[in-house]
Amino acid sequence: MLTMQDALARLAEYWARQGCLTVQPMNTEVGAGTWNAATFLRSLGPERWRVAYVEPSVRPDDSRYGDNPNRLQTHTQFQVVLKPEPGDAQQLYLDSLTALGIDVAAHDVRFVEDNWTSPALGMWGLGWEVWLDGLEITQFTYFQQAGGINLDQSAVEITYGIERIIMALQGVASFKDIEYAPGVRYGEMIGQAEYEMSRYYLDDADIETNRALLELYTAEASRLLDLGLPVPAHVYLLKSSQAFNVLDARGAVSTADRATEFGRMRRLSRRIAELWITRREELGYPLGVAPAVTAAVPVATVQTETSSARQLVLEVGCEELPPAEAPAAAAALGREVATRLDATRLAHGTTRVYATPRRLVVVVDDVAPREEDFTRSAKGPKLAAAYDKSGEPTGAAKGFARSQGLEVSALGRMEIDGVTYLAVTRQEQGRSALEVLGEVTGRAVGTLRSAKNMRWNDPSLTFSRPIRWLLALWGPDVVPMTVSGLAAGRQTHLLRTSEQPVVPVATAEEYLDVLATAGIVADPVERRRLIGERCAELAAEVGGAVDLAGESRLLDQINYLVERPRPLLGAFAERYLELPEAVLTTVMRKHQRYLPVRDADGRLMPSFVAVANGPVDVDRVRAGNEAVLRARYEDAAFFYRADRGVPLPELRDRLENLTFTEELGSMADRASRVGALGIRLADPVTMTDDERKTLERAAGLVKFDQGSQLVTELTSLAGIMAEDYARHGGEPEGVAVAIAEAEMPRASGDALPASLPGALLSLADRLDLIVGLAATAGLPTGSSDPFAVRRAVLGALAVLRSQPALAALDVRAALALAADQQPVAIATEKLDEVLEFITRRYEQSLTEAGTPTELARAVAVRARRPWLADRTLKQLAAAVAEEDFGALAMAIGRCSRIVPAGHPAGYRPEDLVEPVEHRLHETFTQVRSELDPEADLETFRRVAGRLVAPVNAFFDEVFVMADEPQVRAARLGLLGSVRDLGADFLDWSQLRG
Amino acid sequence: MLTMQDALARLAEYWARQGCLTVQPMNTEVGAGTWNAATFLRSLGPERWRVAYVEPSVRPDDSRYGDNPNRLQTHTQFQVVLKPEPGDAQQLYLDSLTALGIDVAAHDVRFVEDNWTSPALGMWGLGWEVWLDGLEITQFTYFQQAGGINLDQSAVEITYGIERIIMALQGVASFKDIEYAPGVRYGEMIGQAEYEMSRYYLDDADIETNRALLELYTAEASRLLDLGLPVPAHVYLLKSSQAFNVLDARGAVSTADRATEFGRMRRLSRRIAELWITRREELGYPLGVAPAVTAAVPVATVQTETSSARQLVLEVGCEELPPAEAPAAAAALGREVATRLDATRLAHGTTRVYATPRRLVVVVDDVAPREEDFTRSAKGPKLAAAYDKSGEPTGAAKGFARSQGLEVSALGRMEIDGVTYLAVTRQEQGRSALEVLGEVTGRAVGTLRSAKNMRWNDPSLTFSRPIRWLLALWGPDVVPMTVSGLAAGRQTHLLRTSEQPVVPVATAEEYLDVLATAGIVADPVERRRLIGERCAELAAEVGGAVDLAGESRLLDQINYLVERPRPLLGAFAERYLELPEAVLTTVMRKHQRYLPVRDADGRLMPSFVAVANGPVDVDRVRAGNEAVLRARYEDAAFFYRADRGVPLPELRDRLENLTFTEELGSMADRASRVGALGIRLADPVTMTDDERKTLERAAGLVKFDQGSQLVTELTSLAGIMAEDYARHGGEPEGVAVAIAEAEMPRASGDALPASLPGALLSLADRLDLIVGLAATAGLPTGSSDPFAVRRAVLGALAVLRSQPALAALDVRAALALAADQQPVAIATEKLDEVLEFITRRYEQSLTEAGTPTELARAVAVRARRPWLADRTLKQLAAAVAEEDFGALAMAIGRCSRIVPAGHPAGYRPEDLVEPVEHRLHETFTQVRSELDPEADLETFRRVAGRLVAPVNAFFDEVFVMADEPQVRAARLGLLGSVRDLGADFLDWSQLRG
Repeated sequence: MLTMQDALARLAEYWARQGCLTVQPMNTEVGAGTWNAATFLRSLGPERWRVAYVEPSVRPDDSRYGDNPNRLQTHTQFQVVLKPEPGDAQQLYLDSLTALGIDVAAHDVRFVEDNWTSPALGMWGLGWEVWLDGLEITQFTYFQQAGGINLDQSAVEITYGIERIIMALQGVASFKDIEYAPGVRYGEMIGQAEYEMSRYYLDDADIETNRALLELYTAEASRLLDLGLPVPAHVYLLKSSQAFNVLDARGAVSTADRATEFGRMRRLSRRIAELWITRREELGYPLGVAPAVTAAVPVATVQTETSSARQLVLEVGCEELPPAEAPAAAAALGREVATRLDATRLAHGTTRVYATPRRLVVVVDDVAPREEDFTRSAKGPKLAAAYDKSGEPTGAAKGFARSQGLEVSALGRMEIDGVTYLAVTRQEQGRSALEVLGEVTGRAVGTLRSAKNMRWNDPSLTFSRPIRWLLALWGPDVVPMTVSGLAAGRQTHLLRTSEQPVVPVATAEEYLDVLATAGIVADPVERRRLIGERCAELAAEVGGAVDLAGESRLLDQINYLVERPRPLLGAFAERYLELPEAVLTTVMRKHQRYLPVRDADGRLMPSFVAVANGPVDVDRVRAGNEAVLRARYEDAAFFYRADRGVPLPELRDRLENLTFTEELGSMADRASRVGALGIRLADPVTMTDDERKTLERAAGLVKFDQGSQLVTELTSLAGIMAEDYARHGGEPEGVAVAIAEAEMPRASGDALPASLPGALLSLADRLDLIVGLAATAGLPTGSSDPFAVRRAVLGALAVLRSQPALAALDVRAALALAADQQPVAIATEKLDEVLEFITRRYEQSLTEAGTPTELARAVAVRARRPWLADRTLKQLAAAVAEEDFGALAMAIGRCSRIVPAGHPAGYRPEDLVEPVEHRLHETFTQVRSELDPEADLETFRRVAGRLVAPVNAFFDEVFVMADEPQVRAARLGLLGSVRDLGADFLDWSQLRG
Repeated sequence: MLTMQDALARLAEYWARQGCLTVQPMNTEVGAGTWNAATFLRSLGPERWRVAYVEPSVRPDDSRYGDNPNRLQTHTQFQVVLKPEPGDAQQLYLDSLTALGIDVAAHDVRFVEDNWTSPALGMWGLGWEVWLDGLEITQFTYFQQAGGINLDQSAVEITYGIERIIMALQGVASFKDIEYAPGVRYGEMIGQAEYEMSRYYLDDADIETNRALLELYTAEASRLLDLGLPVPAHVYLLKSSQAFNVLDARGAVSTADRATEFGRMRRLSRRIAELWITRREELGYPLGVAPAVTAAVPVATVQTETSSARQLVLEVGCEELPPAEAPAAAAALGREVATRLDATRLAHGTTRVYATPRRLVVVVDDVAPREEDFTRSAKGPKLAAAYDKSGEPTGAAKGFARSQGLEVSALGRMEIDGVTYLAVTRQEQGRSALEVLGEVTGRAVGTLRSAKNMRWNDPSLTFSRPIRWLLALWGPDVVPMTVSGLAAGRQTHLLRTSEQPVVPVATAEEYLDVLATAGIVADPVERRRLIGERCAELAAEVGGAVDLAGESRLLDQINYLVERPRPLLGAFAERYLELPEAVLTTVMRKHQRYLPVRDADGRLMPSFVAVANGPVDVDRVRAGNEAVLRARYEDAAFFYRADRGVPLPELRDRLENLTFTEELGSMADRASRVGALGIRLADPVTMTDDERKTLERAAGLVKFDQGSQLVTELTSLAGIMAEDYARHGGEPEGVAVAIAEAEMPRASGDALPASLPGALLSLADRLDLIVGLAATAGLPTGSSDPFAVRRAVLGALAVLRSQPALAALDVRAALALAADQQPVAIATEKLDEVLEFITRRYEQSLTEAGTPTELARAVAVRARRPWLADRTLKQLAAAVAEEDFGALAMAIGRCSRIVPAGHPAGYRPEDLVEPVEHRLHETFTQVRSELDPEADLETFRRVAGRLVAPVNAFFDEVFVMADEPQVRAARLGLLGSVRDLGADFLDWSQLRG
């Protein structure tokens, strides 16, 4: 049995053999090995650096008194940094697993997209979690920035989670049972420290002391930066981070504090990074600088002599692409190849595109061996103008000859439409297929980009993940093509665990066969079909089914996590079915990418389908995946049981320990405000007595489940658990539903509250957040929106637009009610600003949904009552095509344009002079009396349509800008009144009137 | 080449094979691996624990900006703890060196006494520095206490100084040149951090910040202890220690602060230790408890049949004994054996004693094979009383018979002085030699004790160092003897590096030959002679000599550091001879135990003699020793050059950065006070103008060298360097000498200032210390004297007693002058208390020098003027034997006894009645007029002698306690006056008068 201590020694020994320095952990607490100077500082600048070390990583938040089998306040990371990244770090990593005695061919080892970011360090990178039979054992990252600075040299960070790996290897279910050294169990070694440090972090750390420490550390770091000393400044940054984490674990950090502290740490990180870079440069890079990547030389190929058309295959080999990006990238690559090929004279057939996590493939059929030859002509001056009277060539003729690189005497003639011109005609030979394809494919690959691009050791390339090989074949011939440091060849890569992982491909036509022989299904459609088919078969084995349609998004993901899918059926203990379904499926789908299995009635069964990659040892992989799920369910069950044992008011009381923001109080304060606001918002709303009673009861409990342990663990279950716990606690059904609905919608496009009480509480929740934060942190600007105020606004709008009963609510009034509840004073101007912000979001959501901009702008004026605005928009959309509405809009538009902005409406009728003026006055007076602000656009259109004729007559006969001031004022006032008549319904100026 | 990283891996691997857990360094800064919980906490309680780890050890004080080749603010320790100590830890350690590729037979590896203590941790132990060719590479300690608590289980701590070992192995002269990993030099890796962290620790750390941190950490530790959490409390103790060390490096810690902080940390350590022990017990000792040592069974031996006397050899085998203790222990053991043997009837010859660092040997010649047989008689009642009239035995007879276990009829008769008694006579056989010797040697070994005893894994034994084997032979036979877990045998241990380190000895008579054959010189006299002889020869090789007489103390030490001495001649670069001799010899003697080599004129030569142990590879060992000396001299030379480049006033100014104590200001303040006080003390002293000028100049510079780097490094050179630097700085010879003499005497028995200015400054220095500390910290009580106030008092007394010119000084007055200078107000009572303290020390120093207590007490009354007191004592010592002085003392004594204590002297002569009263009055008046307070005792004796007759006559004829009050008062007053006459000279009451 490999002990934990031996495992650490073996990893150290393995990586030392790869040229890594072995160094010591940081001698001040860090949350992860990344914070160690050996990673954070050394990743900066152009110096070479390879290092490996153990890092006891302190996460106060993960304190569990040693009771949780999987979670420790101090867990052990093994950290490797390779800089510059060597190009084969994934393979080096897999070999390190082999060094630990893991049979990587028998197990399902996978690189699953996971991008890493540390806001406090200004550090991020792209990469993966590495899964061992569904268990996350390693974080693998290509760093892109540190201290907010782009890295000169790519660096790979590999972070092993040692306890998890050892638990899996030793087959134990708790950290306590790990054999750390022969005869010594880990729990015996560290149990006491786990308990006591958990006590410290969760219960006993003095908050004032840690606040003071945080301030002292940060100030010292900043002072040291002023003195030009990045190394000790970094140490104090680490200390301040630890103090912050302690405060956080003690529940003493508000959301606002968090943002402030992260900002402060990020600024310190940046200054540290900048200074470090400067110092290393001054020191002349003592550890040496890696040589630059040199441009690849294309493979020299003589094109096979043939007259037959052959297939083109282009394969771009990558490290595991994010599932969402692989298909898009393949499609884009196919388009690029096709478009560029179409622009040549090379005959070719259809283009197909394939993709797997590791390859983007473009196949073009029937590509001719050569471009067709063709004739290229150039037309010069008319013959008549080419020679002067003396027969000498004119300037025009000489100029044309010069432009063609010929003597005038060598020019020919060409007749067009009976006119003769000087001309040159050349026969040009078509280029060879290899030449054309080399250019086309090279350029096409060069265009590859994704939403989030990374850099690796080849600084002239950038893509979602590193491109590691290129295969380009035209029939039997390698297409001579290079992209920066890579040259295309005929080698493709099979699964890493294949006996021969890299194989040559004889001809393009054989390419897909080579993959297929190795079990790789290149065609994503086929692959997805196979997965679905096999999943169905497996589920059927236990008399169940997988809802392939319902799990479509998950299947799309899974499809791009495997090349050689190996679905397998796993089981979990039936007792876990007592957990709410959302708990079970959230864990399966979101954390594990397992497909739930259901019986004929759609009820969950104690089974799942996991999709492994490659010809693994199914029993081992199944056992591993089952163990992972068991651990996760065991955790959840523990929390669920514990939560259900606590009365709802007590859960609700725990919210007092959660700070919302410093100024806005605890989560309990916020929940109280939401409840109270929900009730007040109901005032103008028509609802039944039952609904009102439900609302009042739900208002007293809203958000209580956020005090539960399960929701603390799985935050996406907020609301969902409330419903379960409320029912369990004996609350009426409607109350349980309303509390759950208060959390809806969770994201854009998500389901909305169906009940009126739920909708009102949801609205109250969002308005409370918006108003409170607008008044304290300010409304979001740019891309920064740490409190997700935008999402709250969109949610509130969605709710208001969803139920006619809410049409009665005026947003501005609702904001004022929300403001009343806040513990801070809020000025009216601030609420106007918020309304404006909401209005813009409303307008934006309309345009994003396809509404023409002018219509969206026109109705946004009604955003205070979104349901009415929506109705108006619908009527407007229908109306704009109608002639009478056009005439009305034009009439109102004419009024708007002539009346200077700011000129008030209103006039004394006795100042009016002409009869048409009086007619307009009378019609207007009548129209206005017939309209009320609740009126819909249809009514307005019908009633106000009567103004069109008088307005037009007025403009025909009256000179508005009369000399006499009072006449002029009366005329402008009359037109201004017409202008303002429709202002409540629409912004008419937006219409092309 | 073994890289540093490989060395660490090899040590970890080696110790893991010995069952050690490999753990990580502490993740907060520690000064040494001992502070890590894996040592400090785990050494407590009865649990088993074996651990090995790397510990980057932070010593802010050792910061050198990376400029010093041998010193780093963070150096690397490799730490091993074995608990319980396995009994062969030294051998395990040597094997670990072998694992590093060190040929321990070719090198001179030695265990040199070094007891380790950490006041802050309440932790101490006994053990050694391990030397590799003179280089200290490891600290090897048997822990005795931690947190001030005696350890339940012995534990060995082995701490490797990795950089030093690697520098020696790689043969490089600076840490920067260490090959850390293939192609990577250590300086390239850590150079920047060394520089920047040095900047922080020495120059830039914010003092207020670190003070605040210290307070916060300590408070948090204390609070956590109240909550019963020793683990986090320990973490905060470590943090507070680091904050303290930072303050110390920044010069912000006064001596008083230091004492306070150490006290605080010690108290925290103790509480942490106590709580930890309780918790482990509550947890049921998860790691298991080691079994107790069982008593050894003696070797069963059948005594060889012989009538010849044979030799007894007793060898007690130890781990390396402290040089000062080995000879004393051997002598004590010899005495024990001899005394106990004399108490038996076993005939034997003379006893001899031998000792080496690893063995105490007692040899007794001609021990007979058996005790002589002897007759034992018991006398009963008189025959006359044994039988009653009827011839029946009386009760007495029956009782006697019963006591002898016989029938009355079996009793015999015995005639003594003509009276016949009942009696029993038995012939008893003498015991065998083995039986007797077993008992004698066993008991003798059991008595072994030293000044500082330790415990190891055998809890019933205790001695200076662990006893590891016993050899006891009588001729060919093993003496059956055990002491706790050890049984005597015939095996002895040769050098550890011998081919066969443990060999059997056939007979006692061959024992010394076996040792001699292995080159071990058991006889210390012979060994010392051989060393001296060889040293002389070696020195002669370079035309020099070793001052064997002058180096006697050093030779005594060396003699007990080796068993098989191998003196070797080493050289150092001639340029180092430019350093002051005291620097060179201090380093050689104190740090390296090398013998300096001098030429015919007594001048140092660039050579030394080191004495290795065993048949080492001389060239290698020489090279190693030379490298060590070179490194030390290079350091010293660097400082010396730097210091000499600084003007004296500037060195003096640096004292402002050294705090003396919080209340008493900086060292600069103190130096100013000392200078000023020296000048004021000179007022009553007769001295030349030159002397006065010298004093004034020296007073302005006194202590300036404590601002120099060399004295900071080698504090014992304070004063010595002052003389050198002052001369170099152009000061007059007398000034240079006076500044140097101001630091004398350094210890009791040390040389005293010869010049008057030097003596005055020395005195001022000591009085300033005494008065200042008495007023702030208080006078020392018990064994605690952190500021060495007692030494200062003894020094001041020694100076005052050394020069007649200082007889004019009154200590009480001098104290008042010193008090005037202090920055704190000092009450008169405090000075009286100080005077009393000085008086007691004076008295004590007299008795310790052999003065009879009553004389010492008698003259101590004159301690205000010690020179006069000494003179008095001399005269008193001579006088006490003389009759007339006795008569005088008796007369004064009679007066003292009859006058009630507190009754004042003085009387009205007219109240006297009798003629003898008047005669006494007249004689007294005359005598008093002839005496002055400066008078010596001789004068007093001569003049006051005239009072004897009148006093005696008075007592013969006068009844003192007359009825009339005024008569009685006059008589008592008169006698009181006589009593007081001599009070200034002596405390007459102390004399048997």
